[in-house]
Amino acid sequence: MTERAQGSRRFLRKLSQTAGLPPGTLVHIGEKKVEHPRISGIVYDADRVFEQDIKEVSEIRVLLAQPGVKWIDIDGVHELTILEKLGEEFKLHPLILEDIANTEQRTKLEDYGDVLYVVTRWFELEKASGRILSDQISLILGRDFVVSFSEKEADEFASVRQRIREGKGRVRSMGADYLLYRLLDSIVDNYYIILEPLGERMDDLETRLLEDASPKILPEIFDIKRELLFLRKSVWPMREILSSLERGESPLISAETRVFLRDAYDHTIHVMETIDIFRDMESGSVETYLSSLSYRQNEVMRMLTIIATFFLPLTFLAGVWGMNFVTMPELKWPFGYALAWGVMLVIAAGMVVYFRKKKWL
Amino acid sequence: MTERAQGSRRFLRKLSQTAGLPPGTLVHIGEKKVEHPRISGIVYDADRVFEQDIKEVSEIRVLLAQPGVKWIDIDGVHELTILEKLGEEFKLHPLILEDIANTEQRTKLEDYGDVLYVVTRWFELEKASGRILSDQISLILGRDFVVSFSEKEADEFASVRQRIREGKGRVRSMGADYLLYRLLDSIVDNYYIILEPLGERMDDLETRLLEDASPKILPEIFDIKRELLFLRKSVWPMREILSSLERGESPLISAETRVFLRDAYDHTIHVMETIDIFRDMESGSVETYLSSLSYRQNEVMRMLTIIATFFLPLTFLAGVWGMNFVTMPELKWPFGYALAWGVMLVIAAGMVVYFRKKKWL
Amino acid sequence: MTERAQGSRRFLRKLSQTAGLPPGTLVHIGEKKVEHPRISGIVYDADRVFEQDIKEVSEIRVLLAQPGVKWIDIDGVHELTILEKLGEEFKLHPLILEDIANTEQRTKLEDYGDVLYVVTRWFELEKASGRILSDQISLILGRDFVVSFSEKEADEFASVRQRIREGKGRVRSMGADYLLYRLLDSIVDNYYIILEPLGERMDDLETRLLEDASPKILPEIFDIKRELLFLRKSVWPMREILSSLERGESPLISAETRVFLRDAYDHTIHVMETIDIFRDMESGSVETYLSSLSYRQNEVMRMLTIIATFFLPLTFLAGVWGMNFVTMPELKWPFGYALAWGVMLVIAAGMVVYFRKKKWL
Amino acid sequence: MTERAQGSRRFLRKLSQTAGLPPGTLVHIGEKKVEHPRISGIVYDADRVFEQDIKEVSEIRVLLAQPGVKWIDIDGVHELTILEKLGEEFKLHPLILEDIANTEQRTKLEDYGDVLYVVTRWFELEKASGRILSDQISLILGRDFVVSFSEKEADEFASVRQRIREGKGRVRSMGADYLLYRLLDSIVDNYYIILEPLGERMDDLETRLLEDASPKILPEIFDIKRELLFLRKSVWPMREILSSLERGESPLISAETRVFLRDAYDHTIHVMETIDIFRDMESGSVETYLSSLSYRQNEVMRMLTIIATFFLPLTFLAGVWGMNFVTMPELKWPFGYALAWGVMLVIAAGMVVYFRKKKWL
Amino acid sequence: MTERAQGSRRFLRKLSQTAGLPPGTLVHIGEKKVEHPRISGIVYDADRVFEQDIKEVSEIRVLLAQPGVKWIDIDGVHELTILEKLGEEFKLHPLILEDIANTEQRTKLEDYGDVLYVVTRWFELEKASGRILSDQISLILGRDFVVSFSEKEADEFASVRQRIREGKGRVRSMGADYLLYRLLDSIVDNYYIILEPLGERMDDLETRLLEDASPKILPEIFDIKRELLFLRKSVWPMREILSSLERGESPLISAETRVFLRDAYDHTIHVMETIDIFRDMESGSVETYLSSLSYRQNEVMRMLTIIATFFLPLTFLAGVWGMNFVTMPELKWPFGYALAWGVMLVIAAGMVVYFRKKKWL
Repeated sequence: MTERAQGSRRFLRKLSQTAGLPPGTLVHIGEKKVEHPRISGIVYDADRVFEQDIKEVSEIRVLLAQPGVKWIDIDGVHELTILEKLGEEFKLHPLILEDIANTEQRTKLEDYGDVLYVVTRWFELEKASGRILSDQISLILGRDFVVSFSEKEADEFASVRQRIREGKGRVRSMGADYLLYRLLDSIVDNYYIILEPLGERMDDLETRLLEDASPKILPEIFDIKRELLFLRKSVWPMREILSSLERGESPLISAETRVFLRDAYDHTIHVMETIDIFRDMESGSVETYLSSLSYRQNEVMRMLTIIATFFLPLTFLAGVWGMNFVTMPELKWPFGYALAWGVMLVIAAGMVVYFRKKKWL
Repeated sequence: MTERAQGSRRFLRKLSQTAGLPPGTLVHIGEKKVEHPRISGIVYDADRVFEQDIKEVSEIRVLLAQPGVKWIDIDGVHELTILEKLGEEFKLHPLILEDIANTEQRTKLEDYGDVLYVVTRWFELEKASGRILSDQISLILGRDFVVSFSEKEADEFASVRQRIREGKGRVRSMGADYLLYRLLDSIVDNYYIILEPLGERMDDLETRLLEDASPKILPEIFDIKRELLFLRKSVWPMREILSSLERGESPLISAETRVFLRDAYDHTIHVMETIDIFRDMESGSVETYLSSLSYRQNEVMRMLTIIATFFLPLTFLAGVWGMNFVTMPELKWPFGYALAWGVMLVIAAGMVVYFRKKKWL
Repeated sequence: MTERAQGSRRFLRKLSQTAGLPPGTLVHIGEKKVEHPRISGIVYDADRVFEQDIKEVSEIRVLLAQPGVKWIDIDGVHELTILEKLGEEFKLHPLILEDIANTEQRTKLEDYGDVLYVVTRWFELEKASGRILSDQISLILGRDFVVSFSEKEADEFASVRQRIREGKGRVRSMGADYLLYRLLDSIVDNYYIILEPLGERMDDLETRLLEDASPKILPEIFDIKRELLFLRKSVWPMREILSSLERGESPLISAETRVFLRDAYDHTIHVMETIDIFRDMESGSVETYLSSLSYRQNEVMRMLTIIATFFLPLTFLAGVWGMNFVTMPELKWPFGYALAWGVMLVIAAGMVVYFRKKKWL
Repeated sequence: MTERAQGSRRFLRKLSQTAGLPPGTLVHIGEKKVEHPRISGIVYDADRVFEQDIKEVSEIRVLLAQPGVKWIDIDGVHELTILEKLGEEFKLHPLILEDIANTEQRTKLEDYGDVLYVVTRWFELEKASGRILSDQISLILGRDFVVSFSEKEADEFASVRQRIREGKGRVRSMGADYLLYRLLDSIVDNYYIILEPLGERMDDLETRLLEDASPKILPEIFDIKRELLFLRKSVWPMREILSSLERGESPLISAETRVFLRDAYDHTIHVMETIDIFRDMESGSVETYLSSLSYRQNEVMRMLTIIATFFLPLTFLAGVWGMNFVTMPELKWPFGYALAWGVMLVIAAGMVVYFRKKKWL
Repeated sequence: MTERAQGSRRFLRKLSQTAGLPPGTLVHIGEKKVEHPRISGIVYDADRVFEQDIKEVSEIRVLLAQPGVKWIDIDGVHELTILEKLGEEFKLHPLILEDIANTEQRTKLEDYGDVLYVVTRWFELEKASGRILSDQISLILGRDFVVSFSEKEADEFASVRQRIREGKGRVRSMGADYLLYRLLDSIVDNYYIILEPLGERMDDLETRLLEDASPKILPEIFDIKRELLFLRKSVWPMREILSSLERGESPLISAETRVFLRDAYDHTIHVMETIDIFRDMESGSVETYLSSLSYRQNEVMRMLTIIATFFLPLTFLAGVWGMNFVTMPELKWPFGYALAWGVMLVIAAGMVVYFRKKKWL
């Protein structure tokens, strides 16, 4: 119970942490999810790929000087000195740095002219509780580079990295904007992956629903509904971001990449629709649960009524013939007792016929 | 139960299949619904019709060189080499080919300048389960040709083909854009055809609803509601496509055809409205079901109360006269027993009058 | 039940009739509601009125040649040869003729440049079933003529005709656009007339609702809700038509007439609002019904509980004193029996006091 | 019941009265709420005020010739000859006169170039029934005059008149547009005044709700919800009117007055919000009512179950020892009877303990 | 109960206070929350800070003449003479003064060209009742000054003041527009702070919900829902204000500050979303409550049915063997009594097995 009862705190905990903090100071907000930030660089063009683990931020300058698309990936955003150095290296607006460090941003796209800044979330399902956890992902697109920040070392973009290494698909022959698209596409694909266990929980709940009407089921349904609502609110701005990128408002996005962004946009719509259908399914589950409660009660009531209707008249008769009146002629009839049983059996048989007719039996 | 409990998987199964796949690689996603793709061509103008079964994709070139409107119909999209050859023949953008092969597209219209690409779905009702199944239909409109792709051999467009052969109606005297309209119109008509068995299931359910309040009915209602929601989400973008074609944004659509597209648009609106009314009817069914549960319970309760109210006082009296007190004068009265029955009958009659007054009997 | 259970078929029957039919062929869809079409003409200006029953379509040519506003009214749209001749006479686009003959159109306005074509529906309440029936009305406005088509002979526009004859009001001194307005206004007024019996049925249902909680009432409420939804969907496009005419997008509508169209537009909004309030009332009725079921059950339960609480203890006591233990001293007390009654009466009185305190009696 | 059951007629009665009536004929629709129309004039500027009771419409001409702002107030709109004369005096469009006489207009603003015509409603609460009654108010703004029409003599604008007389506030030093604003502001203030008794009825109902779950309460709640819906639909167009006046689309409204109109607009929004909160509160009341029914039933059921569970086993035991078997050893034990009581008391005590544990007692 | 039952008065009390009051007179509406207004001034630029307690309004003139950003903070708005003097000093439009004094304004932004006027509310939670109280905050932005008014002495902006004093962050190096942003940001942060105790009450309620189904819980849930609705309606216009400021429609807002305003705008959206999720959670709580009522009833009913089904047949048998027929052979069997117990025990055991099978035990 206690865990559930902290439902609201989940949405509020970090909120009040940020409240009252002045804007404009670089400060890390959120949990420290990795010990030391890890920086890795990759430079590629159609012909070659070069990867490097970066120990000192200053090494990046060498990397950036090379031709080809550069992708710098930083895992861990809590060391502010590193963030500040990166900011200098890439000439980032201080507000971008603050947003990267404050890991409670809503998904948004900001156009700073020379760079595009996208901040969004990567979802993961906590197996034990079924809760959806999320990490903040920040993506910066420059003319020929992409910088990606995530809160911990889980390599969300492993498949993209792999394809760059292997030179499969288009990624090697296209620009940094296409790389940004591929990263965003991974995030959208991740929505599907997070929906799948949710769907399984829903199916599982629905099976239990009609078997066991325990009142603990309803809060579980509402938990899922809430996760879906939370997810919906998170996916919605991604839709806007992709639509705005696709409309080609920034010169950093080439026409060629836009067609692909439209594809990712379509996927996001698809995710939204699936979430809506899931929410609708859960609303149906609530009603099914309530009606199954009603139905059970009906069954129990019918049982009770049948029993009472059957035995109350018979018990009454037994009571009558148990009375102590001096003159009760039937008591002395030779077959009085047999007759009594006969009367009672006839009544009982009549009841059974009646209940059958009423379809209660 | 198990079948129902996989409700969510139905929407998710294919989703996670596509997730993680890189864009830009031609890959078939979906079931293989036909053994070998079948290609057929038809060339027509006001005066003549020529049909041909195409074995080799290269034969298409000869067909395209002829005057008149060309319609190439491909059943089966899983053989990628064929798709690639078709792509070369018609000079299609690689993204079109990918969308054709990935049979999980949302309904959409894409304008590639020289061709219009429409991808949508053809619905079919699986008789046994009452599920709505769907195949992907891709339509490509060029200046003087239409290419149509479907996942299997079911000839969705048989009636159009027939009319071209017979030269009935306008189709022979108009261009490829009118042919596209006729194909889209078949798809919209198909919505009506899919709604009809759904409506029958609804009527059937409603009849059962008031007769038998089994808790299995509610999930069935929600099944239908979900199918309707799913259908609504699919029809909605068709409305947008027809509206956009009708506004004449593409030079491939002639003014003459636009008036007809407006007609198809009106039909789509009609389908949407019918779906909305159906959804409203199902919501009503849920409430009817719940209230019929309540009503039944009321009836059962009333029965129980009548029986108890009738027999409890009588049984009490019988119990009183069955007590073993030494001095109970009435027991020795000559007509004591008759009197006892009299008292009990009077009470019983009073009960009946009371219940009648309360309209319980 | 069977009648209700065909609720969905009502919306679908004609739908599937039209599905699969090729556009562009003149074909009558719908019931044949009149034996032979009847055509009547009326020519008027400020000074004179001339009426004529038209046997042959060609007679219309003479009529049209006269000065003044011409109104041709056709009852019955199933004879296609007549439609075709009229089409030639008025030079109508073939699509207009098809829409006139296919009596399943949604309400819409189409601007063909030289003529405006409005298709809408005239509602009637079928007394017996309480169903709203509807006929299709087609109106064509030319420079100096109006052609009106209805499916049967019921003269929907009798009052307009009467005023033209009598020369009352403005109609005689204004143009054909004002005549169109008057016809549309009759249709909007008809909405009010159809709402009145619906309102009466609602009031009637509400009275029965609290008296008799039969489960047949709920489907009746949903019937009305469905009729209202159906009506709403039909009135909505009329609002758009009037708004579009009033904005003066067509040169056929004079500025003077526009002010009147705004009036009709206001009435349509009023109808929409009334429908919304009615729908809200019916939703309230559903909840009232459900709660009255609950309340009744409460009453029945209370009755049962009172009876059981009253007699179970007394019956127990009677049972105790009916036991056959050899040594039960009270049985031999001279006033034992009287005492037993005394005890039982005291308990009964205590119960009454208790129930009074609980406000159950 | 009968009164409630006429709920729908309230919205329909007048509707069908107007239906079928031709536009363009001056005819009074509505009740005659005052015997004779009363006309009063007031002329003012910063320095002086002059008031006059007008017997003959022609006297108005003299008044209008004077310098300063003129306000003509007419109570009673059923005498058409007076309306016609006023129309001539102020050169009003015939449609304005018709709208004034037909007291069933929706709130609207019409711009006739030289005059602005506002028609709206003044609400009053009928104490006895709690119904909201309304009168139509028509306001005409000219360059230097305002004409106001109301259906009866209740001086809705008494406070404005008083302030003009006393020269308080800005009204005397500003133009006719400011006077119009002041009149509209009185109407908006009136919304607050009408909401107050509604709010009291709501509070009153809520208090009764949990005390007494009579099924008569629910229809009362729905009555209030309907009044609120009705009010909402009436206030909504006032919002539009004020917004449109404030945007300064008419040259009759000075920039100075616009700031004040924005204020009135804000108040209207506030009223809308309060209505929304009230509607939300009533929805909550419905659920509270339904749950209190459920809760009561639970209580009654628990009572019944406790009684039955308590006495059924004891009665059974008494029945057993009342059996007439020849050999029932315990019956002959010296302390058999005492033992029987002992057993029964132990069982009873066990029950009490059990119920306590279940928190039923 | 009485406190709750005044729910509506809370929204109405002040409404009717203002109704009927003429616009344009400076009058204080609201409670007097502080004895004497307190005015404090602060002048700062990048290099220095100067603070002053202001006794006489005229002292402000000296302050304003200094270079740097000036921030005048007034606590208490009920002394109209002070307001009037401030109005003269800052050359404020009389409507601004009226809005400051009338503490019932909706949150809004008004652009008077040379100054921007923002009026909004500061929320506080009344610990005892859990009610959200609010004070009106008025902010005026001039070219180089900000004037802030609050109703009482609680220093809402203490943290801003502190940072100015200490010269931390950007505030000292930026203009008056940035100060306005910082004050608005404090107000938005305050939304988070007010949501936290609401969330705790929600969690607390949810814990109690499943333990104790007292009908007092539902009104508490609706209380919270109402607070959330109220909050939502208050936060919504803040969103519009920040969006409008951020779009840079006023020259008083520099481009540099706009980026920060966008940040505050994002926070407001976040607050809105949290409120929506909270509202959704409360709706779920209502359904959980209702279903827990149903579930309890089911449990009680099952108990009753088990008891009745168990004992009614046994009691009947005891009744039969208690009958006084002369010839009842089994009564004389030596083991008749033991047999009777045997029969009854077998029946009882059968019942237990049956109930086990039905999962009732």
